Amino acid sequence: MGTPTRIILREDEIPTQWYNIQPDLPNPLQPPLHPETGEPIGPEELAPIFPMNLIEQEVSQQRWIDIPGPVLEKLATYRPTPLQRAKALEEALGTPAKIYYKNEGVSPPGSHKPNTAIAQAYYNKEFGIKRLTTETGAGQWGSALAMACSLFGLECKVFMVRISFDQKPLRKLMMQAWNADCVASPSNETEIGRRILAEKPDTPGSLGIAISEAIEDCVRSDDTRYSLGSVLNHVMLHQTVIGLEAKRQLEMVGDYPDVVIGCAGGGSNFAGLSFPFLYDKINGRQVEVVATEPTACPTLTRGPFTYDFGDTGMTTPLLPMYTLGHDFVPPPIHAGGLRYHGMAPLVSRLVRDGLVEPRALHQNDCYESAVLFARTEGFICAPETSHAIATAIHEARRAKEEGKEKTILLNWSGHGLMDLSGYEAFFRGDLVDLALPEEDLRESLKGVEDLPKPK
Amino acid sequence: MGTPTRIILREDEIPTQWYNIQPDLPNPLQPPLHPETGEPIGPEELAPIFPMNLIEQEVSQQRWIDIPGPVLEKLATYRPTPLQRAKALEEALGTPAKIYYKNEGVSPPGSHKPNTAIAQAYYNKEFGIKRLTTETGAGQWGSALAMACSLFGLECKVFMVRISFDQKPLRKLMMQAWNADCVASPSNETEIGRRILAEKPDTPGSLGIAISEAIEDCVRSDDTRYSLGSVLNHVMLHQTVIGLEAKRQLEMVGDYPDVVIGCAGGGSNFAGLSFPFLYDKINGRQVEVVATEPTACPTLTRGPFTYDFGDTGMTTPLLPMYTLGHDFVPPPIHAGGLRYHGMAPLVSRLVRDGLVEPRALHQNDCYESAVLFARTEGFICAPETSHAIATAIHEARRAKEEGKEKTILLNWSGHGLMDLSGYEAFFRGDLVDLALPEEDLRESLKGVEDLPKPK
Repeated sequence: MGTPTRIILREDEIPTQWYNIQPDLPNPLQPPLHPETGEPIGPEELAPIFPMNLIEQEVSQQRWIDIPGPVLEKLATYRPTPLQRAKALEEALGTPAKIYYKNEGVSPPGSHKPNTAIAQAYYNKEFGIKRLTTETGAGQWGSALAMACSLFGLECKVFMVRISFDQKPLRKLMMQAWNADCVASPSNETEIGRRILAEKPDTPGSLGIAISEAIEDCVRSDDTRYSLGSVLNHVMLHQTVIGLEAKRQLEMVGDYPDVVIGCAGGGSNFAGLSFPFLYDKINGRQVEVVATEPTACPTLTRGPFTYDFGDTGMTTPLLPMYTLGHDFVPPPIHAGGLRYHGMAPLVSRLVRDGLVEPRALHQNDCYESAVLFARTEGFICAPETSHAIATAIHEARRAKEEGKEKTILLNWSGHGLMDLSGYEAFFRGDLVDLALPEEDLRESLKGVEDLPKPK
Repeated sequence: MGTPTRIILREDEIPTQWYNIQPDLPNPLQPPLHPETGEPIGPEELAPIFPMNLIEQEVSQQRWIDIPGPVLEKLATYRPTPLQRAKALEEALGTPAKIYYKNEGVSPPGSHKPNTAIAQAYYNKEFGIKRLTTETGAGQWGSALAMACSLFGLECKVFMVRISFDQKPLRKLMMQAWNADCVASPSNETEIGRRILAEKPDTPGSLGIAISEAIEDCVRSDDTRYSLGSVLNHVMLHQTVIGLEAKRQLEMVGDYPDVVIGCAGGGSNFAGLSFPFLYDKINGRQVEVVATEPTACPTLTRGPFTYDFGDTGMTTPLLPMYTLGHDFVPPPIHAGGLRYHGMAPLVSRLVRDGLVEPRALHQNDCYESAVLFARTEGFICAPETSHAIATAIHEARRAKEEGKEKTILLNWSGHGLMDLSGYEAFFRGDLVDLALPEEDLRESLKGVEDLPKPK
């Protein structure tokens, strides 16, 4: 069968430690700030929202952190995930490049999200928490947390943005199958939800509102905490199993990437794949690392690096990051997971320091790439993942033009079987290529003008 | 981590031969008959519908048949599939039994169907065929063939039963992503379709009509053939990779099943898992083999063993099988893949000879089992697969009552992420427990009274 198509690790080859990039950063991460005092936030101020064991992980400077046994056991339901060689795609492109993709779509909810959901559910349970709240946009994160809570016997409450709740009824059913309670946001279950509904009964909702509801629900009970599926340091940490496995799998075939690619919304799947390779890069090894995002929500390519709120409601601490401004309302592109105004502080820092190259892509280009991938490799990707595929295809075409061999690695972060409506718009030919107008960007950045600036 | 959760084979451990059970049958399979002459059908009569290389496989008496290299290469996109130990489910049941499930849900369309779709697309391409036609009910088979045709560069036409076409728009999009042309059946593209639409413009369609349309479309072009996703001998053959892998995986942990379980609609996923174990049973080894079906469509448990047509339109040869009569209209249960009046002749023969035990289950029981499985193991199964899970749970509970150890193996034939509406009905509590009334069965069996009887 020649060179392998799928590089497989056995169960006892799941990484037993996460890689924490914090001690290796050329410039240290600056702390989250209290929005009123402007002072660094202390652990005790986060305690009503997160359990202390996760808060400790958030600020840890330890390079390697042991993965607890019960987390490993649940991860083993679908990990290690396959590293696959896209031979048929390479052939269709006629490229001398080798394209490898890490297939995170094999998890029960179909994406990389359970890697952190399982860890977070475990740590909360260990800390004596009985119930988790969260928000979800398109539904990938809410589904993953619902599953993780079910596996560890926690209750789970998901506030799902109203417009997605109505458009994607299957997602709610998925969460229900995992015993989670999923309600449309804004809901009647919180003060803020009731206030917004009273003012605007027909509102489609927003991620900002849903976050505010999830936090309000969380802080009113001692045995409840809040869970976030991206952005935070401990989330990036939990995702590094992806890159650690991929490195080992490439070693098995004697290969190493020239370029590592992930799509970036909040940053978690990108970080998961790339951080273990960035460790090498920081230590002098030659490897390009590319974070791709939509031109419609160009956080890394066009936003400033500044302190900003994580949510529209301005309830979170201020985070040092690239941002389009917390008032930014992304246009309705199909890659819901990439419609976030900010970016993980760790990913932002690495872009700021020139270790990661951001690129922005139009959605038509991405869907075209996704369809070519499906017709050659078989797997239908999530709209978010299509950004990584399109970037890999550009790299492979460039290798062909230059007549150079090249090893490309991308994170295939999830399947698109529950998000096919974007493909429908693409086939109909009415997918709008949205690039953010300069004046809209200027407008939405007004909200960050007076906020502190990180060094 | 103790005993393994997931038993993984590497790519070079994919079986390189299929197992053909025909030479090992205690009583040989009786031939398909021409419906008019009552004489055995010869290969040349099937030639307008199937390519000769598959017709030869259909009647082969060779025990081991080499899997061609290009088929192995495409199978390697998702095979070998994991064999998983359902430890959390066992714990929830408090059973001394070990439950293993073969996870066929990791394929691109999410079921076992591509195992034969890939082989059939390959053999048709080798024979010079440019285009395949088929029918699909709920959409699993149509999706799998669409993908396989895309991988081998064949055109694909899918006639999808109108009611499913309207209820499951995502399935059509999936097929489109793989470049297939999927139309609602009855369609305006065939004589029979136009005739039925003229008589009954609002008809919901049926699998029988869709088969007739696919065959009519096929026979009018020299470069087109028809493809069937179950029932036929070569389809069962292609699925045996499932059981061959599972045997090897169990050997790796020093285990062997006391009972092997698969759900049976047309018979293909059941055959795929069980035939390699039935080889052992025929050769004297102790192993129970159970085929499960819905009480609403109880082909094996209540139908007679007789010659019958494979389709409602009476266009196929007569096959020796258990059947509810080709006029049987199954009630609208959610396991669409189990709503078939007949059963693969090979599976029928093995039931007839006492080597396979059939059992029928109510759909409420099945969904209850599926939900327990999802909440403990994470994976949400297809409605068809829930029949195998429910049977495994019954076996595990019996082992607990009897205080006996037992090794249970089931075929987890597909995920249910695109078929969640059955779960919705279950959660709402309005899932009807349909058992076939005796008088309806008597009525639908009138159509087979005058057909020949196999020995």
